[in-house]
Amino acid sequence: MSTPTAGARPDEVRRHNRTALLRRLHVDGPSTRAELATELGLNRSTIKALVDGLAESGIVLERVPRARSGAGRPSLLVLPQPQAAVVLAVDIRVEQVAIALVGLGGEMLGRNRWNLHRRSGEPDEVITHIIESTRVLADELDLKIYGVGVSVPGVVRRSDGFVHEAPNLRWRDVPLGDRLRATLGVPVRVANDAEVGALAEHLRGAARGSLDAVYVSADIGIGGGVISDGSALRGTGGYVGELGHMIINPTGRDCHCGSRGCWETEVGELALCRALALSEGTPRGVVIAELRGLRADEVGPRLGEFREWLTLGLVNIVNAFSPELVVLGDLFTALPPSLIAAVGAEVGKRSLVSRAIGGTRVQASTLGTDGKLVGAAELAFEPVLDTV
Amino acid sequence: MSTPTAGARPDEVRRHNRTALLRRLHVDGPSTRAELATELGLNRSTIKALVDGLAESGIVLERVPRARSGAGRPSLLVLPQPQAAVVLAVDIRVEQVAIALVGLGGEMLGRNRWNLHRRSGEPDEVITHIIESTRVLADELDLKIYGVGVSVPGVVRRSDGFVHEAPNLRWRDVPLGDRLRATLGVPVRVANDAEVGALAEHLRGAARGSLDAVYVSADIGIGGGVISDGSALRGTGGYVGELGHMIINPTGRDCHCGSRGCWETEVGELALCRALALSEGTPRGVVIAELRGLRADEVGPRLGEFREWLTLGLVNIVNAFSPELVVLGDLFTALPPSLIAAVGAEVGKRSLVSRAIGGTRVQASTLGTDGKLVGAAELAFEPVLDTV
Repeated sequence: MSTPTAGARPDEVRRHNRTALLRRLHVDGPSTRAELATELGLNRSTIKALVDGLAESGIVLERVPRARSGAGRPSLLVLPQPQAAVVLAVDIRVEQVAIALVGLGGEMLGRNRWNLHRRSGEPDEVITHIIESTRVLADELDLKIYGVGVSVPGVVRRSDGFVHEAPNLRWRDVPLGDRLRATLGVPVRVANDAEVGALAEHLRGAARGSLDAVYVSADIGIGGGVISDGSALRGTGGYVGELGHMIINPTGRDCHCGSRGCWETEVGELALCRALALSEGTPRGVVIAELRGLRADEVGPRLGEFREWLTLGLVNIVNAFSPELVVLGDLFTALPPSLIAAVGAEVGKRSLVSRAIGGTRVQASTLGTDGKLVGAAELAFEPVLDTV
Repeated sequence: MSTPTAGARPDEVRRHNRTALLRRLHVDGPSTRAELATELGLNRSTIKALVDGLAESGIVLERVPRARSGAGRPSLLVLPQPQAAVVLAVDIRVEQVAIALVGLGGEMLGRNRWNLHRRSGEPDEVITHIIESTRVLADELDLKIYGVGVSVPGVVRRSDGFVHEAPNLRWRDVPLGDRLRATLGVPVRVANDAEVGALAEHLRGAARGSLDAVYVSADIGIGGGVISDGSALRGTGGYVGELGHMIINPTGRDCHCGSRGCWETEVGELALCRALALSEGTPRGVVIAELRGLRADEVGPRLGEFREWLTLGLVNIVNAFSPELVVLGDLFTALPPSLIAAVGAEVGKRSLVSRAIGGTRVQASTLGTDGKLVGAAELAFEPVLDTV
């Protein structure tokens, strides 16, 4: 944990420690007072005072643990109370929007989703639908919302959640953060979907505990989020990179972004459809079923070219960011495990950086299709844990 | 400046402030006591005590400033004394090694360089030559060396300066840091040349004051160093990326690294020689003269294809790291200014990220061929400023 600077006043120190304790319980789940003391580097009387305060406010509950280990008085188990701080998580995709109400500790308390068609994908329609569905869900469950986190497949200004361009949604200059904040009246954070996915993997998925990892996910487009030295990598003005728009085949196809031969034209959903001889509009479920139904002897002939483009892009990513781990999300999780293993081995051989760092693990996400929702909830919790 | 954490002892605080003051004088040059107090956020009596201590040790000198501004007693000017802390900077390139003795404040007090041929490029030969030349130079100038910084065009383990692979030097598994440390008996830091170049630009060049910048330099190979949120970007185990080995033309040429179509095969020195119809072994000076001698109407026809590859690679770099500035170093500084301007404009149009952040400046380094030496000296000063 970080330490407050010299000269901090006692109430600042207390607030700092309280947030650290809540974050620990939120991310890692129920813990004993003794574990909290050890992991946060605080003495037991400080922990007691903090936990007592949180229990009085109904934010945590304490109970004697069921399984007692060793002799002596057992350390009380501290459990976060989901209803004490609930956030709205929103995952906007090209073909679908999902929302969830997520409680302290990460449990999904309620959820809803709907498909987008041409007209219902307009920004106004999407925003109105999000607000209405949220109200219905919050009323049904009788929950108050403390914050909002939104995942968008586009270029987002983090400071206010302004969406500059979301090429595959055909959105441009949408003040999404301001619109939601004005109506819902709570802090709203909007981020690029790949950054949100990387956050989810880092806090609750395959990249937990990893200091340097890249999350790459496939939907219609390809996004990439980078964890560098334990934090999300952002550039100028907080903007994250757009790894799907790395040009990898200069003589290839035109891309929505106005460039040509971007990586997503070779490994996005449409490329997978081509490889599987499915038409462009094939529903996602059919693509996934087709991928999962491939016989071992079909993988090479049908996905050989796709595999090569996936490998080339990952070689570039590993050569750029030197991660120890690459997590593949969304549609990529339906790829045959043998293909993912082969790609990982090839990247380890062909990347100069990977050879130096002793190889890079390439694996599928284990968060399933909920990854972006999980990440959007964590985005929403960032300011909430300080103030709840 | 960073602040020591709560509970720091007075001597730790004093040491911390002393290093911050020295770093400020080293990087920004002579300053008045009043300026130091304002910029470091310390009161004048603290500054006085620190400066008095440094003056007693002969590390700084104080004098009344020549140009007096305003009424009242002038604030004394504090000047770093170059001889008080001297480091050895080493720039190992494919065809040449340069060394310099650099004093506190960044002044080069002496230098030497020699060309590498096939046999003299062997690691043992290079290391022996560096040590001998350093001894001659230090004896001549009667200087003591406090630390060493080395720039190498390859993949380097930062913790001990072990060179895994330097493809263009044909080096592999060279314990460069240990060898120099054992003989010279002072702290030695070795880093990838692009990281060293980025450090130089960030502290003393075009990227000064920039939080997010990428430095890309062309020698035989292409290297890239990234400054992200004000610090050098490193990945797993401290390894930096290898932007020259981004695959950009999958049907292109074989690369030394074992891959094919790496960016450096399209924009490195050999690619420039091809574009200029020069043979592969053409001396660097001739290549530069040829570039500088191009008439305006020759730039398009002769360098059009090269310009396109340079643009594509920079679009990828901007889409990956979202920098506000790209600094082009080494051989790239000899490119026609009109070509650099055209590349900058194209990157601004074709990169999704650049469009969002309002464009990315692309400009040539102003540090000349000394950039890597300047950066290697700063690398060496990192531990020295704490202990001198």
